Parts: sequence; C-alpha cells; structure tokens
Amino acid sequence: MTHQPGRHFLQIPGPTNVPDRVLRAIDNATVDHRGPEFQTMSKEVLAGLKQVFKTKAPVVIFPASGTGAWEAGLVNTLSPGDKVLMYETGHFAALWQNMANKLGLSPEFIKGDWRQGADPAAIQARLEQDTKREIKAVCVVHNETSTGVVSRIGEVRKGIDRAKHPALFMVDTISSLASMDYRHDEWGVDVTVAGSQKGLMLPPGLSFNAVSDKALAASRNAKLPRSYWSWEEMIAANKDGWFPYTPATNLLYGLRAALKMLLEDEGLENVFKRHDRHAEAARRAVRAWGLEIFCANPAEYSSSLTAVLMPEGHSEIEFRRVVLEHFNLSLGSGLTKLRDRVFRIGHLGDFNDLMLCATLCGVEMGLDLARVPHEKGGVDAALAYLAHGEQAQAKTGAKARAA
Amino acid sequence: MTHQPGRHFLQIPGPTNVPDRVLRAIDNATVDHRGPEFQTMSKEVLAGLKQVFKTKAPVVIFPASGTGAWEAGLVNTLSPGDKVLMYETGHFAALWQNMANKLGLSPEFIKGDWRQGADPAAIQARLEQDTKREIKAVCVVHNETSTGVVSRIGEVRKGIDRAKHPALFMVDTISSLASMDYRHDEWGVDVTVAGSQKGLMLPPGLSFNAVSDKALAASRNAKLPRSYWSWEEMIAANKDGWFPYTPATNLLYGLRAALKMLLEDEGLENVFKRHDRHAEAARRAVRAWGLEIFCANPAEYSSSLTAVLMPEGHSEIEFRRVVLEHFNLSLGSGLTKLRDRVFRIGHLGDFNDLMLCATLCGVEMGLDLARVPHEKGGVDAALAYLAHGEQAQAKTGAKARAA
Amino acid sequence: MTHQPGRHFLQIPGPTNVPDRVLRAIDNATVDHRGPEFQTMSKEVLAGLKQVFKTKAPVVIFPASGTGAWEAGLVNTLSPGDKVLMYETGHFAALWQNMANKLGLSPEFIKGDWRQGADPAAIQARLEQDTKREIKAVCVVHNETSTGVVSRIGEVRKGIDRAKHPALFMVDTISSLASMDYRHDEWGVDVTVAGSQKGLMLPPGLSFNAVSDKALAASRNAKLPRSYWSWEEMIAANKDGWFPYTPATNLLYGLRAALKMLLEDEGLENVFKRHDRHAEAARRAVRAWGLEIFCANPAEYSSSLTAVLMPEGHSEIEFRRVVLEHFNLSLGSGLTKLRDRVFRIGHLGDFNDLMLCATLCGVEMGLDLARVPHEKGGVDAALAYLAHGEQAQAKTGAKARAA
Amino acid sequence: MTHQPGRHFLQIPGPTNVPDRVLRAIDNATVDHRGPEFQTMSKEVLAGLKQVFKTKAPVVIFPASGTGAWEAGLVNTLSPGDKVLMYETGHFAALWQNMANKLGLSPEFIKGDWRQGADPAAIQARLEQDTKREIKAVCVVHNETSTGVVSRIGEVRKGIDRAKHPALFMVDTISSLASMDYRHDEWGVDVTVAGSQKGLMLPPGLSFNAVSDKALAASRNAKLPRSYWSWEEMIAANKDGWFPYTPATNLLYGLRAALKMLLEDEGLENVFKRHDRHAEAARRAVRAWGLEIFCANPAEYSSSLTAVLMPEGHSEIEFRRVVLEHFNLSLGSGLTKLRDRVFRIGHLGDFNDLMLCATLCGVEMGLDLARVPHEKGGVDAALAYLAHGEQAQAKTGAKARAA
Repeated sequence: MTHQPGRHFLQIPGPTNVPDRVLRAIDNATVDHRGPEFQTMSKEVLAGLKQVFKTKAPVVIFPASGTGAWEAGLVNTLSPGDKVLMYETGHFAALWQNMANKLGLSPEFIKGDWRQGADPAAIQARLEQDTKREIKAVCVVHNETSTGVVSRIGEVRKGIDRAKHPALFMVDTISSLASMDYRHDEWGVDVTVAGSQKGLMLPPGLSFNAVSDKALAASRNAKLPRSYWSWEEMIAANKDGWFPYTPATNLLYGLRAALKMLLEDEGLENVFKRHDRHAEAARRAVRAWGLEIFCANPAEYSSSLTAVLMPEGHSEIEFRRVVLEHFNLSLGSGLTKLRDRVFRIGHLGDFNDLMLCATLCGVEMGLDLARVPHEKGGVDAALAYLAHGEQAQAKTGAKARAA
Repeated sequence: MTHQPGRHFLQIPGPTNVPDRVLRAIDNATVDHRGPEFQTMSKEVLAGLKQVFKTKAPVVIFPASGTGAWEAGLVNTLSPGDKVLMYETGHFAALWQNMANKLGLSPEFIKGDWRQGADPAAIQARLEQDTKREIKAVCVVHNETSTGVVSRIGEVRKGIDRAKHPALFMVDTISSLASMDYRHDEWGVDVTVAGSQKGLMLPPGLSFNAVSDKALAASRNAKLPRSYWSWEEMIAANKDGWFPYTPATNLLYGLRAALKMLLEDEGLENVFKRHDRHAEAARRAVRAWGLEIFCANPAEYSSSLTAVLMPEGHSEIEFRRVVLEHFNLSLGSGLTKLRDRVFRIGHLGDFNDLMLCATLCGVEMGLDLARVPHEKGGVDAALAYLAHGEQAQAKTGAKARAA
Repeated sequence: MTHQPGRHFLQIPGPTNVPDRVLRAIDNATVDHRGPEFQTMSKEVLAGLKQVFKTKAPVVIFPASGTGAWEAGLVNTLSPGDKVLMYETGHFAALWQNMANKLGLSPEFIKGDWRQGADPAAIQARLEQDTKREIKAVCVVHNETSTGVVSRIGEVRKGIDRAKHPALFMVDTISSLASMDYRHDEWGVDVTVAGSQKGLMLPPGLSFNAVSDKALAASRNAKLPRSYWSWEEMIAANKDGWFPYTPATNLLYGLRAALKMLLEDEGLENVFKRHDRHAEAARRAVRAWGLEIFCANPAEYSSSLTAVLMPEGHSEIEFRRVVLEHFNLSLGSGLTKLRDRVFRIGHLGDFNDLMLCATLCGVEMGLDLARVPHEKGGVDAALAYLAHGEQAQAKTGAKARAA
Repeated sequence: MTHQPGRHFLQIPGPTNVPDRVLRAIDNATVDHRGPEFQTMSKEVLAGLKQVFKTKAPVVIFPASGTGAWEAGLVNTLSPGDKVLMYETGHFAALWQNMANKLGLSPEFIKGDWRQGADPAAIQARLEQDTKREIKAVCVVHNETSTGVVSRIGEVRKGIDRAKHPALFMVDTISSLASMDYRHDEWGVDVTVAGSQKGLMLPPGLSFNAVSDKALAASRNAKLPRSYWSWEEMIAANKDGWFPYTPATNLLYGLRAALKMLLEDEGLENVFKRHDRHAEAARRAVRAWGLEIFCANPAEYSSSLTAVLMPEGHSEIEFRRVVLEHFNLSLGSGLTKLRDRVFRIGHLGDFNDLMLCATLCGVEMGLDLARVPHEKGGVDAALAYLAHGEQAQAKTGAKARAA
C-alpha cells in the first residue's frame, strides 16, 4: 500500500479508535499476574466493570474475542440438545445461532428482516406456546452491529415476564456496552455478553459475561462440556483478584485506563448522550444525501453505528475501496446477505464532533468519486445539527425557504 | 505498595520481560481487521510462526491464553468419552488432565514424581497394551513450567512409533517454544500447543495450535462440541489472511515484531544457545549455594527456567516476598503440591547475561535476608561460567585448589 | 478543563500533529551518545537533513527551539554593531529583528504591511545604495507564520546578485521547511534557519542551521561571542557522528523516523503537492465564508497555514475559545499587531484530507456559534476541490447555474 | 552492530535510564503551547522544580542541553571582560572555563589535580586578595561528572562570606541535582545550572537555571549580549505559565511525570539515601577488585558516579568495548586528560539494587575478559553491603578471618 499521511479514520463499527491513554497503558511492562501489583489492578477493574454493566452481579473477563463470551454464556448454562430461542436481527444474531448449533444446542430462530429489532411480542407469544418449558434460554442481540438496529431489551424482558417463562435471558451488547444505555440488573438479564474493542475503547482481546444469580444456579446443572469458559473457577479466583489461568495482563491495564475515562472523566450518562448526538447527526447527513438508513424503525436506531443502503446497482465494496484509498477512512462493509448492499458508519468509542465531521466529509466525497447518485448537503445537515441541536432543522428549513 | 525505583525484574517463568520494540508495536493504533493493511500483516505473521514451530502445517492463532490452546487441541480432535493418555510431569500436566475430564474425555494419567520428564518407554508400554486402540491421543508437556523438567518429545514419538499405535500426539510447548529447540514436523507431533507470553516475548493473550494433517483429518470426525476453537473456519479464513472472528489486532502487531527479532535479528538457533547458556549459569549458581535443583535428571534440565528446592523448614513464599520487597524481583512460586517448597527462576524470553546476573544477585541476597541456609558463591559461579563457558569450572577449580 | 473525548485537532501552524511513528521513536530508551548505536543514527540523520534542505553544505542540529537557530545564524557570522538588513514581513520577522538588537547588531528594518512578502526590488535597491558595503547580512523569513505570507527567496537572491552585494543571505524556514519547496543551495542561501516542530513533524526541541561555505568563512572572523551556538566545534564533531555536548537523543530518534517518512515513504515533492492542495482547499473555504484571506498577494500564499481576517468588531480570541471548547480544535491566534484580528489555520505536517475537512467543519461551526457573520458553504467548497481539484469550481459553478 | 537481546544497561553517568512512565509521558500528543492545558502543566512543573532546587527563587527552563544553562548563567549576569573565578575540578569545569573565554570573559582558573573538589579555603584566599572586587563571579561544579568528585558547596559559600566578597556564586549541578542533596537557597547560590538527563530521569534536551534575587539584579546591568538565554522575558512569561518562545512541550510532560516520582512517590530525601547507598556499594566493589577509586578524598565521594583508575598499561577504551559487546552495558569513558585512564560507573537516576548488581557483574566479568589485573570479590562485597549495610564489612571481615 502506498504511504498515507496523517491519521487514519477507523470508522468501522468496532474495533474503534483506541485513545492514546489506553494505548500507553497497554504498553506498560508486563507484570507478575500472581503478584500484589496485579492483584490491586484486577480488583479495581472488576469493580469498575460492574458499574458499566449496571449490575451488582459478577462480571467475568475472558482473554478472548467477543465470540468467546457468546460461547461462555451458552456452555455455562445449557445442556446438549437444550432448546434456545434466538431472534434473527442480523448477521451476528445468525452467527450466534450457528454457534448454538455447533455446540449441540437446538436453537429456534425467529425470522426477521434485519431491518427491525427483536419483537418483544413475538418472543412473548412463542414463550407462551412453550407450555412444557422446553425453551431454556432466550438470546437477543442488543445492538446488531451488521445493521445498526437496536432491540428493546427492557421490553423483551417484560414479554418474558408476561409469559411467566423461566428461560434464561442472554443479551449480546458487544457493540452497545459503554456506548448506549444498558442495564443488566434492571432489565433482568441473566447473561450479558460484551467485548473490549467497541465502547470500551480497547483493542480486541478481552470479552465479558455479566452473570446473574439465576444463570449461576443454572450453571451448576448445565451439562455442556466446558473448561476455559467455566465461570465457577473464574468467579472463585476473581474474589481475591486472581484468575484461574494467565489473564491478558496488558489489555487489563488498558481496561483500567478506559474505565477511568468512562466512569470518572466523562461519566457514563454523558458518554451515552454523546453517542446519541453523533448518531442523530450521521442520520441527518444520510437523509440529506437522499440515501436510505437501513434501520426501518426510528425507535430502534443505533447510537453506535448507522448502516446505509446503497442505491440499486451500486457497490458498497467499490465505494469503500475508493474511500479508503482517497481518504484514509475505513468504513464497515455489508455482511453476508447485505454484502455489497450496505455500508456502515461507526460513530462509537472515543469519538468527537470533528471526527464525525471528517467521517461524513469522507463519505460525501467518496459518494462523489465512486459516482454513487446522491444529493449534496449531508455534511451541512450534520454541521447544522452539531452546532444547533434540535433547532437545526427548523433553522435550516427557514433559511432554505428564505432562499 | 511503596514506590520501587528502577526497573522491575520479572523473572517468573512467564510472562517474560516484553522487549520495548514489541510493546511499541502493540501500542500502534488499532486497524480494520477486514482491511488490506491487516491482511498483509496477518499473512506475514502466519508464515513466520511456521518457522518457529518448524512445520509446514498450518499454525492457528487464538485470541486466548495458552489454556485455550490446550482446549482447542482436545475439542477439535476428540469425541466424548475418548480415552487420552497423559503423563503427570507436574502442575500443568495435571491441569491439562483436569481439563480433559471436564470436557468429558477419559484421561488416563501415568503417574510421575514431578522431578522427571515423561518416560518414553512407559508410554510405549502402555500403548502396546492398548490392543483395542482405545487410546485416541497421547498428551505430553514438553517443558513443565512448574518444575523445570523437559520431556524428550522426539523419544516419546519413537516410543509411539515402536508401539505402532495410531493415537494422536499432542504436545504443550507453552514455556519452551522459541526458547528451546522444538520440531513439530520432525518429531511427528499432531497438535502443538503454545502461548504468546514466554519465548515469543509478548504479553499474554494469544495462543497457538500447530496442526498436522492427521490431526486435521481427525477433526472431521471429532464429536466434542466446538465453535470458538474450531480449526476448520480458522484455517479456511487464514488462507487469505483473515480470521473468522475479531482477532487480537494489537497483539498481532507485537507478534510481528517479536518474530522479526527471533527469526531475523538473532536467529532461532542462537536464541536456543542463549537459553542453554543462561540455564547452565543458573544451575551452577544453585549448586554453589548448596541448594537442590528440583529436576532430577540432568538430561532433562529446562533451559527456560530452574526450579529450586527450599531447604526443609523454610518457606519459599516468605523468601519470594522478601525478594520482591527488597529487590523488585519477581520469582516463580511453588504450585499445588510444590507450594511453599520450590521457587522458580525464569531465564527465558528477551534476556541477557546481566539480567541473569541481577536475578541471581537478588536470589543470593534474598536467601541471606530470609535466613535460608546456603553457601555464598552462587553469583561467582555464574559469573565464571558466563565469562569463560565450560572452562569456568576447571578454572574455578584450579583457583580453589591453589587457595 | 473538562474531559474532551476523542482526538484533539492541533491546527495551529506548529507545533503540528506528531505522527505516532515519530512519537514511538521518541519514547525509545535513551542511549549512550558516545556509543556506536548513536553514532550510526546521527550520521544517518545528518545525511537525511541535507536532502530536506536541498543542500550539500553541512546542516547543524541544536538542542533548542527555532529561536535558538536564529541566534546561531547571527552570532556565528557577525560582529558587534554590524548592520543587518531585515524585512518586516510580520511578527516573527519583528522578533528576529529584536533579537538582532539585543545581540548588539544594527538591524535596519524595511517596513512592510505584513500582508505581503519581502519585496526583492526593495532589497536590491537598498543594497545598491549601500556603496560602502556596510550591510553584512540580509535576513528574510521565508514563510511568515504569523500571516501566512511567503517571501520569494529565489527572487530575493537575484536582487542581491543584481546589486552585486556581498552580504550574507539568511532565511528563516521554520514554518516552511519540509512543507513547501525550499532550496538552500540553488537559491544561494548562506544560513537557513529551521525548527523541528512544523514540517518535520516532531515536537519542539530541535533547531537547525544549514551553513554555506561563505557563511563558514564569515564565521572565522565574526566577533560576536558564542559558545553553545558555535558551528565550528559542531561541524567538526558531526563529521564522525558526534556532538560537542549532549544532544537531544530521543528527539533525534524521532527525527530519523520523520526523515524516513518524508524522504522515502512519501517523497518530498509529494509532501509539497499535498500542502499546496490543502492550502488551496482551505482558501476556497475561507472565500466561500465571505471572509478575507490575510495574505494580499496570491503569488505569496502560504501552503502551510492560512491567516484569516476577522470581520470588524469580532474577536478572534473569543472565536478560538468557542472552537476549542466545543470542538477540541486549536487554531492559531493573532500575534502582536494582529492580536484579536486574525486567526490562523495550520494545515501542515502529518496531515490529510479528512483532517483538513474536520478543521474546516470546526471553523464553520465555530463561526456560527461565536456569531461571526459569514456565508455557509466553506466546507462544501473545500470538499468540491478536494474531490475534483481544479475542475471543482467550474463544476460547482455549473451546478449553481443549473439550480 | 549485531543484535543484543534483553535490556541495555545504560550506566554512563548520564543520560540515565529513563523510566517507562517518563517515556510514556513524553510520547503524548503534542499540545498547543499557548492553550489552557499547556498552561496548567507548565505552572505545575515550574512549582515542582523549586522543590528540587530547594529554592523559593525562580527556576527557568531552556529547551537546550546543560551546556546551554552554563551559558545562560554567564551571559545573564556578566559583562565583556569580567573576571570570573573558576575552579579546575575536572573536564567539565575546564569546558565551562573555555566557554567563559569564548564569551569574552576573563576566567581565572584555580588549578586542581582533578582528584579533589574545589578547596573552599583557596577560594576564600583568592577572594580576599581581590581587594578591588574585580572578580564578578565564582563558578564551581558541584559534582564533577568526569571524576566523581564532589565539591562542598556549603563550605565554598562560607569561604566567600568570610572573604566578604560580593561575587556571584554559580554552581553546576548537572550530575548531582535530584541525586544528591543540594540547597540553592540555604547555600546562598546565585545561579544553579542543571540539565534534564541525569537525576531528573529525562532524556537530554532541557536545562535549568535557578536564579537568586542578587543574580537577577546583576542581570539588569550585565552587558554580554543575550537573547535566547535571557532570563527577563522568561521569568515574566513564566509567571502565567507561558514561555517567550516555543518550549520543548513533550519533554515538559516527561518532567511533570519525573517530578511526581521524585517528590511524591519516593521523596527527595529517600532518593538521596538511595544514591548514597548505591555509591557506597559500588566503591566497596572497586576496592575489593583492588582497583583505585579516582576521587582522592572520601569526604568528596560522589553518590551519582564512581570513576575508577585503570591499572597502568591497561586501556579503559578497550575494556569498555569488551563490556559493551559482551554484556550490553555502557560505561562512561575517560575524558581529555583522563582519556583511556579511567572508566566511570554511573549509578544515578531511576536505579535500584539489582541494576547496580548487574552493572558490577558486567564490570567484574569485563575486567576478566579484557585481562585487566584485579581481584575477584567485588560483586560479593557489594552484595554484602546491599543486604546488610554497614554491618557488611564486619561480617565479611569475620568470615574472611574465619576462612
């Protein structure tokens, strides 16, 4: 590849731009993971994570990608052949369902069109039918990274409750945790699955399970074989700040730094507001370009990414290639059935107004260079919103009328 | 903890001292793991790893600790209830055997006294008895990190061959790879298990399987459930430099830097000689102190660590505490049945003569301060050997006689 | 200050955004500046610098700010009371003249309005008047960092030659070197003054003199006292890669990395084209906003920064405060007589299209929030130019007409 | 150079081993040196420095090597032809005197044999002779980096006072500040000269003057030309956290980190004790080797370095070459008249017991390999002292007698 001057804009929906403070923390000299310095750090990190998941339950950390935490959730709580109700919200929901199959479970997949989140009513209805209580777990992706569609987890919980069904509730928050509001305890989630490389602003390599008492109880009778992912030894060792096998020391330094930024320097609720604001600005740009936001339901818009439909006959692969070559900007691709049909703008993690502006400028110029039909004005719409918030539209409208 | 000036000496037998070049590589900005820059890097890294394992077979990389690569070896090749022949060389062999149990296999554990490596004849004998070929795999730890005892893998292979037994051969090289000579292909190993945080000079967080054709064939019929650890998707994706799920990007940068240092800057064979030399110097120090090297058989001495027996009635835990507090030096502890009985000196990874000298000075002063009975002269013996090699003893002997 | 998420945009006209590769080079362990590793590095760096200055003459490196290199140029070549002809191009030219006064020289300052570069004809005329050859040096700032105005050094040289005047020619390239074309040898410059923190993409702390034979000859008779800045010992020691006193080792590592990027990875001529392009895009934005570019003469536009006049009655200090607080963007302030009247956009160093876009978006929104009267469309004009180059205007014009 | 594994031991008497925390601070993104974040940092740093110099007077920071701070002290306070009394303690005292000559002063150099510190009585005597008060300044090096000899600054002050002489008192603390006790105010020093790369644990590139009221008053009438080094603008700008020209931003971040380590984490008095202890251990090693400590007077031993005389007919250059090649250890060379006659062991900065042990092991083996006649036992003597302090000798002595 030829030399590209200046900073790369990593605007895929994760991994995200890792802040310098976190990178500098990660490159500290590796320490003895059985020594007192490590112990102090791990206790601090384990406590901080609970605040991020909004839980009093244990949060376990695996040296693994987010995919590992999916597997951990399933193998700790379920037995071979167990029926699992999953919801097809997109590519990642489908991968999780594939995994359940591979692990010898019997996933039942409620079909979806990928443009809407999990339907709480459909889940409730299915659970009500399950009079034999064969369904052992309900698995939903909070924020579908492939589509930018959010499922309303609190509503799904209410659906399960209305059905009075005892199934465990597992939620993938890989691309929402620490970017969008999420409440493990309040929403009655039993297993929350997360990864390091999105809202937590770390490189990939750590993944997480927040584990409710009910999930822990289930794990005592679960028969799927497990060792690496076993919560039991992990939670026991974590009590004193230790791990049952060598943890990913240096990424944990980074996690400590990231937690400080999220919880102390900015504050979680401010982090969420920032993501909401950038998502709205991005959507205004997309609409101004005359392109279609892939998410069909405004109540389900993601605040961490926006997936955009390409006009018929135009290739997102070619478009992203142009953008990367000309503007040193990485955008997210369309996955499986969306391949070459949508591109995704990641606006999560350690991100600010001007990084978003740069990203949208790159998209606008890229649409132009790749000869994708569109209107001008996307960047302008975003600027108006970023500078003036909700007043932006009115104001811009007034100006337009005046003109 | 109070402030400790100067550099920490991390002389546990892994994680090892990560060189600055590797730390600086790890703290580069995270890139798109679906982009061309990443693809180039991963191809380079996958090729370099083959040289380290001395294999033409695929080497797969998991974002996980070494423990994960143990699990990967088992779940990819075996089916529930399969009999596995394992050899009790120490704490880590015992952990691997526990894992086999947890995963629903039937490990048979050849007892050992922890002071000797796996006995090729005993393995051969057991396999010869297995006329029904029920044993599906033989699992041996190359370098027992808990004891500093090496098993002769080439000899074990010959024993299996002599028994004409079709079992797979799996070897844990977590604390030997890239420190001591190891030959995946020549020694006919089917699954080699390794981790990043020892001879590869990285922080923990990556683990590896080198996979023979025979192991790959076995994986097609293996019935243990698997998804995260599945070789199939991994090897398929790796062909083009991709991964089936998000890889630990930043640790891979570090791996590229470490491979360059090992393969190009120093050369693997020089790396091995260096480790041999430091191990010999460490043992001379131990002997001069009048302490006992835990490994009983000189042919099985480890070049990456030396475990030392504490004199009766003296606590290694207390000794190591003194050493850490006074000298900012971390030594390895005694594990499970060796708890409070041996301490371990790690002399592997990015290490040189003066780092070894510092370590031995710390041990010698620590023995003194912790009132552990010993002779002086350990450091002197090491200095003589480091300066003069094999001539050292003769020379020192001559001097002693002259005195 | 409250926490500001995401990356800071440092768009003052220097120090510039230091690339990660350079920062990582700087944070290497400090080495012995009398050892062989250092010697190899310093020879490499001294050779690379000559290419950047386009000279075969020695380039000396001071551990100092650019201001130090001004002083070095004067004290090495001149004697107390010497007459020096300087040209008032702006704030920095004025500071250099102050320095000449403080050092006991007699600077004569050709007045300027700060909006135009040094006038070659005026210099020629003054030199022709100087029949007694009392003027010992002509000092010109190549790129006035306070105004964004370039002086045509090649033309000034011709003026001096036409006057057949023997004065030394000294040029400050602090904010032009390695951003805009500069030719020490071809333009017959005797002393070129430069610093590390602009086009060379380093933090501040190094400064440079390129020294012609004529300047060296002059230094032998120059009577101003000097020691730290003395070229003689420096050039002698540099021959073998050494320095007469402790050099700024770690910044020199960074310099090596930066030289590799400039000379090998991108190529100097490409670096210049990139800066020209970004400067043109910035000016199109300024014009579209209806604001005035401070530089009066298009032939003298700077490619490393653009100074913009604030509309009457509006404060650039307040404007920049708003921009910093809202958008984490630092812009350059108005200096001395331009205080509160111009702001400056730095677009030099390790910079790319989207970084410029982000900067211009920040300015456009800032103008809005600070209620500075302006037209919309600055960002749009820049995007059009960045995407389509010279065709942009025509195209945009056509579209406007069509609308 | 061939690859050398492991950590380099930089045991020259400065630059010293820069701690990771300081390196990581230095590699932060460069900020606007006219912005609020910088201002906060520089105020913090300027306040912390006063504690290190033990002064309430201003301390100014130059982006320059220590040599620059020598020049600053002279040019700010003196006029051409001024008589300055300097004391030949070694190479650096001689360089300072050369500088005084070059700057047009009239230094008078009290001869010394380099093995003893400045003699307070001799200085007093010379000042008493100076009935015309022609001597304007007395300049003494606190810790001669070329010899490891300390001058007793408090005593020199008393000598000046007894002579009732009004001369300014200037002291070079380049290799003592923040390693050995130093008291700018209590000892009545007018100008203290220091650099960043020794006890302050930074790379080279910053230098310092602490400036008494008397020195400031003198600067108002001093006639030596000055600009870069001028205190006046510096002190005025520093009041609000600014600098009159671009400061070395990134080194200042490092300085902030280093000050925190010195003043808060370890405490200055503990830092001094640590250096005293390491120096004593090093001297015990030298004596046990049967080599001669260059410093003749035990009351003047340096705590930051130890210079060692080579036995007649042996080359320190060759010895150091052997040590560097075999052991990746840099030692200090003999300078000017000590060239090839002494080597110097730096034991200052961010340093601990095992780093010293490693250094002494490297020296002991190097003496052996370079065939320099010596006794064994240097390392042993140091270990005994480090483990047992003052009791070491008695103990070792007892053992020797017993043997």
